[in-house]
Amino acid sequence: MKKVAIIMGSDSDLAVVKKAVEVLKEFGVPYEAHVWSAHRTPEQVRTFCSSARERGFGVIIAAAGMAAHLAGAAAAVTTLPVIGIPIKSGNLGGVDALLSTVQMPPGIPVATVAVDGGVNAALLSIEIISLTDEGLAEKLAERRRADSERVLAKNKAVEEELNQ
Amino acid sequence: MKKVAIIMGSDSDLAVVKKAVEVLKEFGVPYEAHVWSAHRTPEQVRTFCSSARERGFGVIIAAAGMAAHLAGAAAAVTTLPVIGIPIKSGNLGGVDALLSTVQMPPGIPVATVAVDGGVNAALLSIEIISLTDEGLAEKLAERRRADSERVLAKNKAVEEELNQ
Amino acid sequence: MKKVAIIMGSDSDLAVVKKAVEVLKEFGVPYEAHVWSAHRTPEQVRTFCSSARERGFGVIIAAAGMAAHLAGAAAAVTTLPVIGIPIKSGNLGGVDALLSTVQMPPGIPVATVAVDGGVNAALLSIEIISLTDEGLAEKLAERRRADSERVLAKNKAVEEELNQ
Amino acid sequence: MKKVAIIMGSDSDLAVVKKAVEVLKEFGVPYEAHVWSAHRTPEQVRTFCSSARERGFGVIIAAAGMAAHLAGAAAAVTTLPVIGIPIKSGNLGGVDALLSTVQMPPGIPVATVAVDGGVNAALLSIEIISLTDEGLAEKLAERRRADSERVLAKNKAVEEELNQ
Amino acid sequence: MKKVAIIMGSDSDLAVVKKAVEVLKEFGVPYEAHVWSAHRTPEQVRTFCSSARERGFGVIIAAAGMAAHLAGAAAAVTTLPVIGIPIKSGNLGGVDALLSTVQMPPGIPVATVAVDGGVNAALLSIEIISLTDEGLAEKLAERRRADSERVLAKNKAVEEELNQ
Amino acid sequence: MKKVAIIMGSDSDLAVVKKAVEVLKEFGVPYEAHVWSAHRTPEQVRTFCSSARERGFGVIIAAAGMAAHLAGAAAAVTTLPVIGIPIKSGNLGGVDALLSTVQMPPGIPVATVAVDGGVNAALLSIEIISLTDEGLAEKLAERRRADSERVLAKNKAVEEELNQ
Amino acid sequence: MKKVAIIMGSDSDLAVVKKAVEVLKEFGVPYEAHVWSAHRTPEQVRTFCSSARERGFGVIIAAAGMAAHLAGAAAAVTTLPVIGIPIKSGNLGGVDALLSTVQMPPGIPVATVAVDGGVNAALLSIEIISLTDEGLAEKLAERRRADSERVLAKNKAVEEELNQ
Amino acid sequence: MKKVAIIMGSDSDLAVVKKAVEVLKEFGVPYEAHVWSAHRTPEQVRTFCSSARERGFGVIIAAAGMAAHLAGAAAAVTTLPVIGIPIKSGNLGGVDALLSTVQMPPGIPVATVAVDGGVNAALLSIEIISLTDEGLAEKLAERRRADSERVLAKNKAVEEELNQ
Repeated sequence: MKKVAIIMGSDSDLAVVKKAVEVLKEFGVPYEAHVWSAHRTPEQVRTFCSSARERGFGVIIAAAGMAAHLAGAAAAVTTLPVIGIPIKSGNLGGVDALLSTVQMPPGIPVATVAVDGGVNAALLSIEIISLTDEGLAEKLAERRRADSERVLAKNKAVEEELNQ
Repeated sequence: MKKVAIIMGSDSDLAVVKKAVEVLKEFGVPYEAHVWSAHRTPEQVRTFCSSARERGFGVIIAAAGMAAHLAGAAAAVTTLPVIGIPIKSGNLGGVDALLSTVQMPPGIPVATVAVDGGVNAALLSIEIISLTDEGLAEKLAERRRADSERVLAKNKAVEEELNQ
Repeated sequence: MKKVAIIMGSDSDLAVVKKAVEVLKEFGVPYEAHVWSAHRTPEQVRTFCSSARERGFGVIIAAAGMAAHLAGAAAAVTTLPVIGIPIKSGNLGGVDALLSTVQMPPGIPVATVAVDGGVNAALLSIEIISLTDEGLAEKLAERRRADSERVLAKNKAVEEELNQ
Repeated sequence: MKKVAIIMGSDSDLAVVKKAVEVLKEFGVPYEAHVWSAHRTPEQVRTFCSSARERGFGVIIAAAGMAAHLAGAAAAVTTLPVIGIPIKSGNLGGVDALLSTVQMPPGIPVATVAVDGGVNAALLSIEIISLTDEGLAEKLAERRRADSERVLAKNKAVEEELNQ
Repeated sequence: MKKVAIIMGSDSDLAVVKKAVEVLKEFGVPYEAHVWSAHRTPEQVRTFCSSARERGFGVIIAAAGMAAHLAGAAAAVTTLPVIGIPIKSGNLGGVDALLSTVQMPPGIPVATVAVDGGVNAALLSIEIISLTDEGLAEKLAERRRADSERVLAKNKAVEEELNQ
Repeated sequence: MKKVAIIMGSDSDLAVVKKAVEVLKEFGVPYEAHVWSAHRTPEQVRTFCSSARERGFGVIIAAAGMAAHLAGAAAAVTTLPVIGIPIKSGNLGGVDALLSTVQMPPGIPVATVAVDGGVNAALLSIEIISLTDEGLAEKLAERRRADSERVLAKNKAVEEELNQ
Repeated sequence: MKKVAIIMGSDSDLAVVKKAVEVLKEFGVPYEAHVWSAHRTPEQVRTFCSSARERGFGVIIAAAGMAAHLAGAAAAVTTLPVIGIPIKSGNLGGVDALLSTVQMPPGIPVATVAVDGGVNAALLSIEIISLTDEGLAEKLAERRRADSERVLAKNKAVEEELNQ
Repeated sequence: MKKVAIIMGSDSDLAVVKKAVEVLKEFGVPYEAHVWSAHRTPEQVRTFCSSARERGFGVIIAAAGMAAHLAGAAAAVTTLPVIGIPIKSGNLGGVDALLSTVQMPPGIPVATVAVDGGVNAALLSIEIISLTDEGLAEKLAERRRADSERVLAKNKAVEEELNQ
């Protein structure tokens, strides 16, 4: 099975990244997580990402805040799909990270998820890898069913509480 | 090879979608394009997207403007990766479509690209399919090299024009 | 009397929805509340909303946060008036939910109230139902008078505190 | 049948209002349109809106730009449902009018539609009046079907143009 | 001396208004404060503001949050200068109140100060009244000098703390 | 009668300033207009504004775009009321100028009008000067009546065009 | 004299860059301009910027639009001051480029100028180099004087046109 | 060695300024810090900044919040490079200060760093001064290496915690 790489620009992004890691573990998808900054350790980002495909990775997830360049820096040196998680950091609610991640120029796409969207970044990476692994597709469908059931259970509780 | 589905919410999104189609043709990736609205033809969106995986699609690209729900509606009924293109439409510069596409709740990811980002949506879909087709990975790398060379050629022209 | 349906995308929207429920109870307007997600239980949203008119509902209120598609998904399958409450959720102050709810494309209107505007969603639903029930119109007018008197009482208290 | 009142703050809002009028005519819903400003003719707004219910109106649509107070001024003096159309006017893309219309304080709801959303304001008003007129409900459903068919026709054209 | 009227849309605006009152007391400028809502007690707003000039007022200060119409409603019925204080209320940081207050259409000006700018609203009202009272002009100049000295004292403290 | 000073940061602000000048001429209020930049001719701004009161001015209007400091620079050296007109200039729709003008710190108020609000800046200055000149108050009231009549005339035209 | 390097992410940034070049020529400051993309030619950006100091450059100016990473990518590999010009490109007015350029994380500063601020980027670079070249300081002061005189000349023209 | 001047508009900016001071001390760069307001002590700002170059300063750092004019006021009277730190103050997350600082008109540049970016303002000032002091260039490079090592150490800790 293809592996998922997760890089984060700072260990202050760890809380969001851990949510992604939990999902990957839940699906049994192999992953590697690293703290590498686009600006403070550009060499590590480049070396790791440019060789990720040949080392068995299928997706790179990059989490970063503020002028979030990490996902773009990764995408510039690989042809693997790169998923960007804009992290809320500082005073602007993550809008800076969102625009810095999603508004990539033509040629170098970044698949951007919601601000602090760790869970969805992991699910998206699994959806991508599921193209090469039918078992994952089935597990994703199961998780959707479980999600639906959780909503229906909440619905029942709310109906009992609110409706007469 | 996995196919790429492109759905757009309105034929006013056609200009952006055509840029995606051109890229897919350039790479020889099979695709299907449809005009289906999340709100005006929800049944078609649901039927098509929920059976897309079994009919050989690997990715769904959804382009929509304003309160752009199309990518989310697609993602809700498939476990294939769904790419959302927020379309500028109306007065808000596409910010409405961007937030409506990218800020998906946990459980249903949408891989969002830039406002009017047709080219990158197509490239991202090819990166995803390249996990199952090594030839595409090589073509993507070639395109990157060609992009770099185009930049270098422009650089040369600018150097000659501006530098003394 | 026509009934009011209230659907919310997640039970994290409950605090705002309860404010709406309180107002409906105050007016003696029959209602039903449900937790149904546009993305996680689209089938339930569709089934419920598409048959709401024939089952005696006059209005559907839909509360959702982030890329808030719930009101639009409801509106797509009913010709009843649908009221959208954008819920603040996450880091963007509810602007994402506001734009995702209000910027609906021509053909499928959503009557949008303020971010977290549970009270006004209920009042608007009662105003709508009052077209078929003169008693409600009178109760609405009474509530306005009570509101005015509350303001005048506050005015008196402030005048005594601040003016010499 | 209940009538629809349309008031606009300035005749520069006429282009958007005419789209609403066309829809009302299409449905045969009686209407009255007026140019009355919340600030320049507050007396007319008050007199008209406070007596609208007793003169047979079922809904008031108010269109205004910039610091758009018209819908709120109308809503303050009637218990009829008031629909606000934020008009793009000036440099801010209509965001000023949108927030001035939708962010109403508890007690005085305004049913807000998209910036320049003339068509949807009319459709929403018809949905509201349809509570008292089954024929309108059926006509609304027919229009939806026609909308869907228009999308499907566009889909066919696009499929023929883009797909191989 | 001309009096200053202060109206606020809700007693939740009281904290900001009290800052204005303190400044007016400091200058010995006579004032009256009232809680009157543009939407819940429009009659009181109209009656008070339309007769304010003849009852000896020189300025009206209006504080309101969200879709803040109060200053505009006051300005519509008086030719006295009206100062608007946008109040932060709810989730949007006061941007809604700022735009609803400042973006007035031609013909009905509102002199807008910063979000929650109670102190400056009072100072501006005193500057305006100082046109008819030379003593106030001198007091304003004295306050400026005191402000400057306070800055210089802080400067001295910071220089001692930070500089070597 | 007190005079009105109008300063603009650049002659690119002239179109908006001319609208203010027209209004002042209409009312027969004496004025002086100058092009002086807060950054390029700070000395002139300071000299002019700090002596404006003693030379018979009653109000200073300052129009500037981008990081619009002119109104604040004027306000810092006078105790006359200063009216700021944020000018749209460049790519941000005037939001930069609006925030730079209105968000003044406590102590130095600027009476801010809408982006490009030349007419209202002049009317506000006349309202302020009307405290010392009853004739102006009456002229302002007349202008309001004329405005109302213009709206009513437009209303009549629209009623004839749109209503049946 | 230290040289100024100007890099732009695309030749669509040329119009803004040329304004910077004109200023540098006016001051006789040696420069080199290049088209190098952070994402399409990262190697060239890195090689050029990391050796810029030793090759006699004193400042690097980087112009880029959308998710503008170029200035940050340059700053990551040099300890020379890097000036970022956010370029308006696409639908968001340059806000995306502004936030992507200015919101750099601690450790890697970028000196950001206004959106499309080519002239100021050049002037800032000359101010920086003037620390090592007294002649430039004097030329900068002269240019300021000329700017002031141009304002005064415009002032004269406007005074003649507008004042009576 | 050239000295760095730091001015702040209020002692409420002290927390951010202290971060800059720490960095300057770490590098042994001489500095002076002052609290001087563009609006409350404009004379001190002008006197200090206009003579800063001749008294041995090489850079001026200016920190201010809201309608942050301080950096622009400094830049208007010196040809030294001026670095602006937008300070978050009040309700708008620092966006007001950011736009007021960065959107300077052509002719008077301000080198803007991130909202509350005290550390980067200091580093940028040292980069600028390093043009005249090779020792600083080396110290900057050392700090970068230390930063990288800190990231690598964090990476190691995260790898041990998260990877299996």
